[in-house]
Amino acid sequence: MVIEERKTYRVIGTRPIRHDGIDKVTGRAQYGADIRLSGMLHARTLRSPHAHALIKSIDASKALALPGVKAVVTGADFPEVADSIEDMGEAEGSLRDLSANVMARDKALYRGHAVAAVAATSVHVALEALALIEVDYEVLPAVLDVRDAMRSDAPLLHERKTASIAGESEKPSNVAKHDQFAWGDLEDGFGQAEVVVEREFTTEMVHQGYIEPHASTATWNSDGQITIWTSTQGAFTIRSQASGILAQPISRVKVIPTEIGGGFGGKTLVYMEPVAAILARKSGRPVKMQMDRTEVFEGTGPTSGSYIRIKAGATKDGKLTAVQSYLAYEAGAYPGSPVTAGAMTHVAPYDIPNCLIDAYDVVVNKPKVAAYRAPGAPAAAFAMEQVIDELAEKVGSDPLQFRLLNSSKEGTRGPGGRPFKAIGHEQCLRAAFESEHYKSPLEGPTRGRGVASGFWFNAGMRSSVTVSINPDGTVNLIEGSTDIGGTRTSLAMQLAETLGITAEDVKPTVVDTDSVGYNDVTGGSRVTFASGMAVYEAGMDMRRQLIARAAELMGAEAEELEYRDGAVVHKTDESKRYSFKQLCERIFERGATVVATGSVVGRGVGGAFATHVVDVEVDPETGKVDILRYTATQDVGTAIHPAYVEGQIQGGVVQGIGWALNEEYYYNEPGQMLNASFLDYRMPTSLDVPMIDAVIVEVPNPGHPYGVRGVGEVPIVPPLAAIANAVYRATGVRQQKLPMSPRRILETTFGLE
Amino acid sequence: MVIEERKTYRVIGTRPIRHDGIDKVTGRAQYGADIRLSGMLHARTLRSPHAHALIKSIDASKALALPGVKAVVTGADFPEVADSIEDMGEAEGSLRDLSANVMARDKALYRGHAVAAVAATSVHVALEALALIEVDYEVLPAVLDVRDAMRSDAPLLHERKTASIAGESEKPSNVAKHDQFAWGDLEDGFGQAEVVVEREFTTEMVHQGYIEPHASTATWNSDGQITIWTSTQGAFTIRSQASGILAQPISRVKVIPTEIGGGFGGKTLVYMEPVAAILARKSGRPVKMQMDRTEVFEGTGPTSGSYIRIKAGATKDGKLTAVQSYLAYEAGAYPGSPVTAGAMTHVAPYDIPNCLIDAYDVVVNKPKVAAYRAPGAPAAAFAMEQVIDELAEKVGSDPLQFRLLNSSKEGTRGPGGRPFKAIGHEQCLRAAFESEHYKSPLEGPTRGRGVASGFWFNAGMRSSVTVSINPDGTVNLIEGSTDIGGTRTSLAMQLAETLGITAEDVKPTVVDTDSVGYNDVTGGSRVTFASGMAVYEAGMDMRRQLIARAAELMGAEAEELEYRDGAVVHKTDESKRYSFKQLCERIFERGATVVATGSVVGRGVGGAFATHVVDVEVDPETGKVDILRYTATQDVGTAIHPAYVEGQIQGGVVQGIGWALNEEYYYNEPGQMLNASFLDYRMPTSLDVPMIDAVIVEVPNPGHPYGVRGVGEVPIVPPLAAIANAVYRATGVRQQKLPMSPRRILETTFGLE
Repeated sequence: MVIEERKTYRVIGTRPIRHDGIDKVTGRAQYGADIRLSGMLHARTLRSPHAHALIKSIDASKALALPGVKAVVTGADFPEVADSIEDMGEAEGSLRDLSANVMARDKALYRGHAVAAVAATSVHVALEALALIEVDYEVLPAVLDVRDAMRSDAPLLHERKTASIAGESEKPSNVAKHDQFAWGDLEDGFGQAEVVVEREFTTEMVHQGYIEPHASTATWNSDGQITIWTSTQGAFTIRSQASGILAQPISRVKVIPTEIGGGFGGKTLVYMEPVAAILARKSGRPVKMQMDRTEVFEGTGPTSGSYIRIKAGATKDGKLTAVQSYLAYEAGAYPGSPVTAGAMTHVAPYDIPNCLIDAYDVVVNKPKVAAYRAPGAPAAAFAMEQVIDELAEKVGSDPLQFRLLNSSKEGTRGPGGRPFKAIGHEQCLRAAFESEHYKSPLEGPTRGRGVASGFWFNAGMRSSVTVSINPDGTVNLIEGSTDIGGTRTSLAMQLAETLGITAEDVKPTVVDTDSVGYNDVTGGSRVTFASGMAVYEAGMDMRRQLIARAAELMGAEAEELEYRDGAVVHKTDESKRYSFKQLCERIFERGATVVATGSVVGRGVGGAFATHVVDVEVDPETGKVDILRYTATQDVGTAIHPAYVEGQIQGGVVQGIGWALNEEYYYNEPGQMLNASFLDYRMPTSLDVPMIDAVIVEVPNPGHPYGVRGVGEVPIVPPLAAIANAVYRATGVRQQKLPMSPRRILETTFGLE
Repeated sequence: MVIEERKTYRVIGTRPIRHDGIDKVTGRAQYGADIRLSGMLHARTLRSPHAHALIKSIDASKALALPGVKAVVTGADFPEVADSIEDMGEAEGSLRDLSANVMARDKALYRGHAVAAVAATSVHVALEALALIEVDYEVLPAVLDVRDAMRSDAPLLHERKTASIAGESEKPSNVAKHDQFAWGDLEDGFGQAEVVVEREFTTEMVHQGYIEPHASTATWNSDGQITIWTSTQGAFTIRSQASGILAQPISRVKVIPTEIGGGFGGKTLVYMEPVAAILARKSGRPVKMQMDRTEVFEGTGPTSGSYIRIKAGATKDGKLTAVQSYLAYEAGAYPGSPVTAGAMTHVAPYDIPNCLIDAYDVVVNKPKVAAYRAPGAPAAAFAMEQVIDELAEKVGSDPLQFRLLNSSKEGTRGPGGRPFKAIGHEQCLRAAFESEHYKSPLEGPTRGRGVASGFWFNAGMRSSVTVSINPDGTVNLIEGSTDIGGTRTSLAMQLAETLGITAEDVKPTVVDTDSVGYNDVTGGSRVTFASGMAVYEAGMDMRRQLIARAAELMGAEAEELEYRDGAVVHKTDESKRYSFKQLCERIFERGATVVATGSVVGRGVGGAFATHVVDVEVDPETGKVDILRYTATQDVGTAIHPAYVEGQIQGGVVQGIGWALNEEYYYNEPGQMLNASFLDYRMPTSLDVPMIDAVIVEVPNPGHPYGVRGVGEVPIVPPLAAIANAVYRATGVRQQKLPMSPRRILETTFGLE
């Protein structure tokens, strides 16, 4: 469904077959674990069995004596590094922390923290050697929950001062950062309020659950050249992080991104890459490292559990007057939770005149978090959108109409304080309101319908592409942005649109860090937007060059010619004309090839909004929540490839459903995750969800030549709250804790026997 | 030794460590045979045991029934193709012939001609299956020698008319082409002559002898995408040839060049690439094919055997008055010998007022020839430079002085008729004359000193590179020219010179055909020249971009700034300055990266001349010729990396020594090569040659920004003649046939018992 009018395109908005499809469905695509080099060793990681422990000593002598073992690495093999680097991908935090997360130094800070690794001639020998490494631990008390960690008597993860809790003394604590956002006059706002809702919420740590476990292979030549093959969302980001941690010049490191089996933000940090590199240096051999699923859960970066408290007020006729929020997010073992993004996003859909938000980043004895699809936003929306729902109910308003009355629009204060440009929240709300779904009645004793909105900033950052012609009239598109969500095709389509050719005539390739200009990490839905701008620039550069070449061929001046409909045409004599294909042929016959480049910083990002409607049925006997129907509306700016957009929306919703109903890091007292496998960590399967109805709303982003906004993040933001609101409508009970598992539903609603 | 003055450079002329060295000496470089893909099949080729035979039928049913056999290909699997394509690399000839050379159709035209291939789960199964293929041949009489093949009663290889022998009727013959070059008045020229020499010469077919046998791997996806990994001198050339032979659009084919273990012109044509691709299509699996050494000798492209007759006249005071030449070269089974290049090069060193050259390309029942280092020139020089030597002797002149008196110089008629620009033949002759070697006496009864000159055109053609900056102030150089002779480093150095940085700060990478603009084949010594021009253009483009970026940073106008000594400097205020490294850092912090490109047609090629001096000793008992001392002078224009230049000169000389003394395709009557292994095909080893003294002469090429000429080809041109002249001086017997093997020396000089 298209709400706003937009330009007519020839390629954009169509659904060509994806360029990478055949390689993937035929098993020909090379993923991280598919790398095989001559003389390659296999390495495995020894991980801390304790959630918090001093490492008093490590004795690897027995492991090294085992036949077939070629090298052992521990924290002692890592250089001291500078505290920060420019390029941490989507993560916040310091390089020193990242290095310590890759391999523990004096302390293990979570169960699963790497403490040593072994490279051997086979996986079996490596695993046997791990059992021979003797680590002398002094176990310390662990703290696993964000609120426990904020207590003044909590066990401290880091001795160094990290941040002060507002109003307390500046002694060392587990609080790494405190951000505050305030505008208007809170007291005045709550003074105007005629209804006030105040509630608190908790969410648990959850994992991205990408299908492909991490796999990295490295060589380290005697001239210092390091080559890393790895499954990553950002080859250049891994290059920066690895060169920083290894204390090597950045140009000594070449990162070759393999095909990637899912990332969702979780493949933006180094884990095994520097370890494999050091093992390669020590052994003189290529070294491959892989994780199993338990290691992925325990040793990589999930997203934060959180504690959130919100107080919000409105007038009787439904205008929001004030919001006060308190957000505390688990960072895991090192600072860097996405609490600031959570704080900024959860109020973005609404025009709130008076607001105060406190946001705390808190370290706990769990894995260091990484980005996960709209990092920080879903938990904050889970809280905010339930409070909004309750306010709507209290003033007797339809929940969508209540949101529409308070919706942000062009000119409303946006996150960070600057006013929004053209945005589409109102359009999403209207699309939801007018949907068949919302108009259809829902009957049944334990059925309910919920709605919720969500916001994500989208990211811009740096992109660079190169394009060159082939003699058969096709174009090679050389990119450096890992394709996690279909960007080979979405970029090829934008180039095709710019050049007036077909998507099939563009051949996109993602190359390594030595073979294309710098590109930031694939994340924040930035690639179709910012690399799309780079592609547009390269396409326009190519058009200029083609005009110049056609002018030579025609014996005309470039000024007399224009590029139109995939051809260079004489402005006053249309019979003088070279199609793109003809030009490619002639250029190949006559002269130097045509290569064009585009390098940009993606300014002009347009924020994305979504509004979801969900019907649920709650089983009073088992507590199980079934998703009966789900409609997701979303302003995507311009849908380059609608099928991909729908897929992104559907995928985000399904991850949200999992997060809402079942997923959680389930810990025992000493800090061991008890469900670190896909058998026990319950992600939705196709049997658990209905077909998600994706409603595409297009309010073109004025900051992009084709009106692109990001589409990948925001669909995961509303589902947690939408489902909680639906469960409330079905049961009359507010769900303030995630996941809304059968056990929790029984406990809160039907009484657990 | 530098003869001409040249500009002062910072990087050019130094000897940095080669960028690809460590990977090669540590065995980490990936060559053709190192490719391993999941599910890959291994294929082998069935080759004709007959030099000339009709293929009446092929029955592969037993082979296909063998467990493990997945596909069989024969000529019937190849599509009909267009007669010609643009991009045949260094080869002449038609695409249809190339296709038939890759897999025989109705006729096998030489022993070793591929007639079928099998892909199986292992090499052993594939070899077993080959033995089960039943081919019904009707053996035909074969013709192996160029003069026999020109006879009117010779067995005909091709029924279609190919060319007419001058003066004969136009009936079908084995003569594929007749070229004639004539200028001046031959009768008048010989009228002026006071001494005339007339001699005839023969040379045998020889092989390039690269160490790495051919290896190619292919996949053919169900969407039509074909990927080929292969050891080649020209990925784009293989792409053109393979797409032509397979009748697929050129952009459907991606060629990934592996590291290459030698080519010397011999890896410019497809052999197994289309076969592997068809087997991959039939089996649905990746298919790898490799040759053994015998297959390399019998199934790839050596260079022509030849028959050459020369009549030349001079005045008593040593001025050449006329030359008449007749050259007939073996093309092998399909047209395409380098006879035209031989015809054009052998007279190029001299100012010859009256000249007539007839050149014949003749098919014989031997492998189709491919390029070999200065294709066509060594055999022609072998003849011409002996005639020159004899004329010098007859007029009582020193052989170098005789050449100097007649030398081509700027303004002399060059090959093709246009006058030479600045060239260095005179300088080479003087350098040889003034060398310690030539001044030193040579004594002993069977010792002799010979000299000879040579010429090679050098090639330009199309090159394209992309360069991009790294945050640490280094530059990635992305090229598409296979590096067979050190061009990663010679291009990196030219870029470093242009940007005012070090060679070590440039990181060159050769990428695949999808990842860089079009580049012609690596051959004819064109890469350091033409890709060097592309690198220079890209460097200058980058300088302009860096000036613009520095202007932004300084708040200045670009016109106020200039690029100088590796920095952007304010023209009037030198304190305002950004070094290249500083700029790279600041650009990474602040904005879009900088990428620059250069795409050129390499016009302005400068020809290369060389003059060699050799001392030999002939053993009267065994007939063995020992090389005592060897000095090679050569005008290289500008020596970018003198160590590489010396290496090219030394390598060319050694190959020339092998060709002169021992190498030959040795056939029995029915056309079987009897010495198709490195045990029997006698190439020089380090024990056979002295240290070659390379004397670098630099007459900068005015057609290139750094004065580059090609250096790789011309060093192989003089040795055959120089050694023959030395043997003559040692023995008094002219050597008119190659190789000057012990047997031949005994036969011609000392009497064979």
